[in-house]
Amino acid sequence: MGLIVQKFGGSSVADAEGLKRVASRIVATKKAGHQVAVVVSAMGDTTDELLDLAEQVTPMPNGRELDMLLTAGERISMALLAMAIGNLGHEARSFTGSQAGVLTTSTHGKARIIDVKPGRIVEALNDGAIAIVAGFQGINQDTNDVTTLGRGGSDTTAVALAAALEADVCEIYTDVDGVYTADPRIVPSARKLDSITYEEMLELAASGAKVLHLRCVEYARRFDLPIHVRSSFSNNEGTWVVKDHPGGASGDNMEQAIIAGVAHDKTEAKITIVGVPDRTGVAARIFQTIADADINIDMIVQNVSAAATGLTDISFTLPKSDGAEATRILKDIQGEIGFHSIQYDDQIGKLSLVGAGMRSHPGVTATFFACLADAGLNIEMISTSEIRISVIVREGDLEKGVKAAHTAFDLDVDDEAVVHGGTGR
Amino acid sequence: MGLIVQKFGGSSVADAEGLKRVASRIVATKKAGHQVAVVVSAMGDTTDELLDLAEQVTPMPNGRELDMLLTAGERISMALLAMAIGNLGHEARSFTGSQAGVLTTSTHGKARIIDVKPGRIVEALNDGAIAIVAGFQGINQDTNDVTTLGRGGSDTTAVALAAALEADVCEIYTDVDGVYTADPRIVPSARKLDSITYEEMLELAASGAKVLHLRCVEYARRFDLPIHVRSSFSNNEGTWVVKDHPGGASGDNMEQAIIAGVAHDKTEAKITIVGVPDRTGVAARIFQTIADADINIDMIVQNVSAAATGLTDISFTLPKSDGAEATRILKDIQGEIGFHSIQYDDQIGKLSLVGAGMRSHPGVTATFFACLADAGLNIEMISTSEIRISVIVREGDLEKGVKAAHTAFDLDVDDEAVVHGGTGR
Repeated sequence: MGLIVQKFGGSSVADAEGLKRVASRIVATKKAGHQVAVVVSAMGDTTDELLDLAEQVTPMPNGRELDMLLTAGERISMALLAMAIGNLGHEARSFTGSQAGVLTTSTHGKARIIDVKPGRIVEALNDGAIAIVAGFQGINQDTNDVTTLGRGGSDTTAVALAAALEADVCEIYTDVDGVYTADPRIVPSARKLDSITYEEMLELAASGAKVLHLRCVEYARRFDLPIHVRSSFSNNEGTWVVKDHPGGASGDNMEQAIIAGVAHDKTEAKITIVGVPDRTGVAARIFQTIADADINIDMIVQNVSAAATGLTDISFTLPKSDGAEATRILKDIQGEIGFHSIQYDDQIGKLSLVGAGMRSHPGVTATFFACLADAGLNIEMISTSEIRISVIVREGDLEKGVKAAHTAFDLDVDDEAVVHGGTGR
Repeated sequence: MGLIVQKFGGSSVADAEGLKRVASRIVATKKAGHQVAVVVSAMGDTTDELLDLAEQVTPMPNGRELDMLLTAGERISMALLAMAIGNLGHEARSFTGSQAGVLTTSTHGKARIIDVKPGRIVEALNDGAIAIVAGFQGINQDTNDVTTLGRGGSDTTAVALAAALEADVCEIYTDVDGVYTADPRIVPSARKLDSITYEEMLELAASGAKVLHLRCVEYARRFDLPIHVRSSFSNNEGTWVVKDHPGGASGDNMEQAIIAGVAHDKTEAKITIVGVPDRTGVAARIFQTIADADINIDMIVQNVSAAATGLTDISFTLPKSDGAEATRILKDIQGEIGFHSIQYDDQIGKLSLVGAGMRSHPGVTATFFACLADAGLNIEMISTSEIRISVIVREGDLEKGVKAAHTAFDLDVDDEAVVHGGTGR
C-alpha cells in the first residue's frame, strides 16, 4: 500500500468516455490498496475555446482575468471526473489549486509554484476518498488571486503535489508509452526506455523532447521523486524517471548505454548580428537588452574578430515566436552599438544527443560529427553540456540527422544488446 | 455619487456582443460618478451545457461536485466581463462567491446566504475599480466547500451584496422593462408599474410572476434595500421595488391603485385524497409525510366531513414536478391512514390578484369573483392573504380569467386615471 499521484492530460479526458475510462483506471489503483490523488488538466479543447472567447472580447486580456477564465477549464474536468468516480461507487472530492494549497508567485499566465500545503488533500485521503486536484493553477499567496502556471503546468502541479504528499511515485499518463530514444514518427526503430535519469530527462526536455516539461523534471529531481511516464490507453509499464539507472550508477551493469536518446527541435531561429565592434561590454549590452525583454537565448557563437577591421559577428538562437520582437529590439540599439546589419534565419533545426554515459566515453563527439558528415549534413553551431551535445543544422536536414545519429549509437530497436538499461531486467 | 450594484442575467451576456454591451452600460454608470459592483450569471446556455456533461458521466451527480462544476459558468462570464470592461479603459476585477465573502448554508444546489463579508469588494471599489462578482454561488463557511444557491440565486446574490455594501440601489437588469400589471403576452394592455412595494412583489413572485425571485425580494425587504428592475436593452426607467409607494403610504396620493397586478401560474397540480377518516392527527400525519420529502404545498382545502360516514376529502396544490413523488409517498401510507383513493389533476391554473390597497377596500373579493363568474369560470379552490386573493381554475380558463380581472380592476393601459401610483409623477 502506497500513496500514488496520477496526472491525466486534456486529451485523456476530452469527453465523457475519456472521463469514464480515466475514472476506471483511478478506481483500479484505489482498489489495489493505494491512496490516490489525481491531477487533471482541462478537457480537450476547453482552454483554446476559452482563449477564443477572450479574444472576441478584447485583443489584450488582463492577466489576472485571463487566469480566472482559464482556470474554469480544470474546474469543469475535475468536477466531472469526481462524479464519474462517484458513479463507480468510490468517493472522490475535487479541489481547486487554491483549495489544494498550491501557492505560487504572482506572475499571471506563468506563475511558479513556491510551496504546496495540501492539508485538505491529506484530510480527503485519510477519509478514504480519492482527491482530484486541478492542474495548471494555484493562488498568489500575497494577493489571494488565482494564477496559472503556463506550459507544462499540470505536470508540475502533479510532481509538486506528490513531493508535498511524500508520495511513492508520480504517474504521468500520456498518449505515448513512455520516453523513447527518439521521436518514433521520425525514427520507426526508436525504442521505449525503461528508465532515464533526471539529468538526462532534463537535457532531453530542454532539447525539444515533448513528453515531459522541464519544470516538472526539475521539481522531481529536487525532491528525488520518481516519475513514471506511461500510456493512459494501456497497462504497460512506461518509463521511470529516477535519480540513477537501476544498477547503472554502481557500475555493475556493463550494458549501460552511452546515449539515452536523440532529440530534435524545430522551434528555434537564428539571429546573426554582423559587424559588431569588438569592444569590451558590447556583447553584454546586446544580451542584456534581449534578456530585459524576457526572451530566452539558447546557443551563442561569436567569431574571432578580423584584426584588420576590429569587427566580429555574433550569432544566437532563440524561440521563433520571439524572433520579430528580438529583431525590433536590436534595431533600436543599432545606432548605439554601431553594428552593420541583422540577419534572421528561421530555417534551422537543433539536433541533440543526450546520455549520462558521455562523461566516461570521450569518443561520442567524434562519432556524432562523423555520422552527420557521412549523411552530408553541415554543422552551423555547436553547444555542449556534460551529458549533451547539440548542433544546429538546416531544418530540412534535421530528420536525416536524427536517423543517422540514432543508428550510429546503436539505439535502433533490433540491436537489443546495447539497448538502454541493458537486457537483465 | 453613490454605490450601485448591477445584476445581469445569462441572456444579457450570452455572447461576446452581449458582454460588450453590458460592459458599456457598466462603464457609463461608472463614468456618471458612481462606485459600481456587478453581479453576473453564467453565459446563456452554459449551465445547461454543464448539466448535460454531468448527465453523460453519471445519472446521480454528487451535490458537492455538481456545485463545483456549475460555478465554472459564472467564472467564465465574470472574467470575460472584466476583460471587456478593461478593453474600454476601466479597471475591473472579478471575484468568485468565495472571494466576495458570500457565506452560505451547506445544502448543495440550494444553499441559502447566511452573510456577506465583502472585504475584497470594498477594497476594489476603494481602489477605483469596478468589482465583478459571480452570482448564484457562495462558500459553506464550515467546510470551505463551494455551494450554489439554486433558482433565482444571482438576483439574491446581488441584493445580499448590495445590502452588505450598503448600496444606494440594486439594479436588476432583465429582458423586460420592469414589473407589469400582468404578463403582457397574455394581456397586451398590461402596463409597467413605476413602483411596487416589497409586500406586493413578494405576493406576485409567490403567485407565479417570473420577473424577480421570492428570496431576493425577501432579502431586499429585510434590509430595506431599493431594487430597480429594468431592461438591459434600453435606458428607460423600470420598476422600483420599495418599502412604500411614493406618496402612497402617507395617504396624499388619492389615485393609489387598489391592485398592483394580476399573476398566473400553470406550474401547479392538485392532489385530492378521497375518503380520509375524520380523526384528530390524520391531516397532520399526511402533511408531515409530504413535508419530510421536502415538497412544498401551496393551497389546502378540507371539506366538512359527512356526519354519516365520518369521512372527508382533502385537496392540496403542489408543484407539478413533485406530483409523482407525492403520489407515491401517499400510497405508501394509504394502509396506515385508511383513505379510499388519490386523485391527481395537473390541468389546473392559479390566478392571483395582488395589491396593498386590498386592506382598505373590502369589495375586492366580490368584484373579483363576479368578473370570473361573468367570464364563465368555475372557482375550485380559494386562498387569501392580507394583500392577495388566489383562486384555482381550469388551466384552459386561466388566460381568460387574467384578462377579465385585469379589466375589472381598471388596470388596462388606456384607463390611465386609475393606473398604479397615479398620474402625478
